[in-house]
Amino acid sequence: MSRSPGRKQENHKISRELFVLTYGALVAQLCKDYEKDEDVNACLDRMGYSIGIRLIDDFLARSAVKKCRSYSETADMIAQVAFKMYLGVTPSVSCSSATGNEFSLILDKNPLVDFVEELPAERASLCYCNLLCGVIRGALEMVHLAAEVTFLQDRLKGDAVTEIGITFLRKPEDRKHRR
Amino acid sequence: MSRSPGRKQENHKISRELFVLTYGALVAQLCKDYEKDEDVNACLDRMGYSIGIRLIDDFLARSAVKKCRSYSETADMIAQVAFKMYLGVTPSVSCSSATGNEFSLILDKNPLVDFVEELPAERASLCYCNLLCGVIRGALEMVHLAAEVTFLQDRLKGDAVTEIGITFLRKPEDRKHRR
Repeated sequence: MSRSPGRKQENHKISRELFVLTYGALVAQLCKDYEKDEDVNACLDRMGYSIGIRLIDDFLARSAVKKCRSYSETADMIAQVAFKMYLGVTPSVSCSSATGNEFSLILDKNPLVDFVEELPAERASLCYCNLLCGVIRGALEMVHLAAEVTFLQDRLKGDAVTEIGITFLRKPEDRKHRR
Repeated sequence: MSRSPGRKQENHKISRELFVLTYGALVAQLCKDYEKDEDVNACLDRMGYSIGIRLIDDFLARSAVKKCRSYSETADMIAQVAFKMYLGVTPSVSCSSATGNEFSLILDKNPLVDFVEELPAERASLCYCNLLCGVIRGALEMVHLAAEVTFLQDRLKGDAVTEIGITFLRKPEDRKHRR
């Protein structure tokens, strides 16, 4: 993708409602295509991964952020810069392990479900926003950070908040170093 | 959907790249689901229609525009307010009929294809952005304006510009009145 140098920053800004409704159409289509929720979830995660490995270039170029020096900084960056940029919200971050490699992004309000009342009874295991997990996983992989990303809580399923768990997977040399 | 009154305008603004890539994933999925381009195009149009009939409320609330008094005003509104709001671009508008009910929205740059190199050879009849036609048609129908909306030119297919044609369908009483 080539960009003309004169392209203005504000041209990239859009209202998110068309995106949110288009995402809903995507999930609805996958629910037609796959009977099992698990298959829909896996497909959304795969799609998100493919998006994440492409979106990272745009993110690094546009945000002009520096290299993060810790998992904690990385988690803050995802919440405060990336979520703000692409979804218009800023989740709060909490570190959920003593080993310092597990984090939670907590969304009081999830814009992706703005037009969703509730999940249908027969779709109780659907992770409606699972694309986001794939996007985060794909983007992190492109900056050489392996991670597991999953929904831990979901307001669509009656939880009080929506919580995305990120577990950074230590590299073998990290482990060796720690021994 | 309920909105809290204190919700700020800027919270709705997002970068469009995640949307553009998610739209690409939707089109790719439909290409897996349907062998014929015509079926993909029809499905995108139907999805867009469903989105348009929901998006119009958001548009009217957020834009605070007044009622249009002519087809020409309506076409300008779509280009200058709606496209700007939801896609971050402003197409130029031209009236393409002496009867004053046919308009073209001309996009020099179509953000929805930002990450698309070209259509694969076996997808030569695909209207990649056909969702937009459905969105416009659905939104117009909700303000009691029947219209046909189709792509007339597409840069993805080698045309010089991307052109969306809108033909407002006159109501029977309009025609009677004109006789």
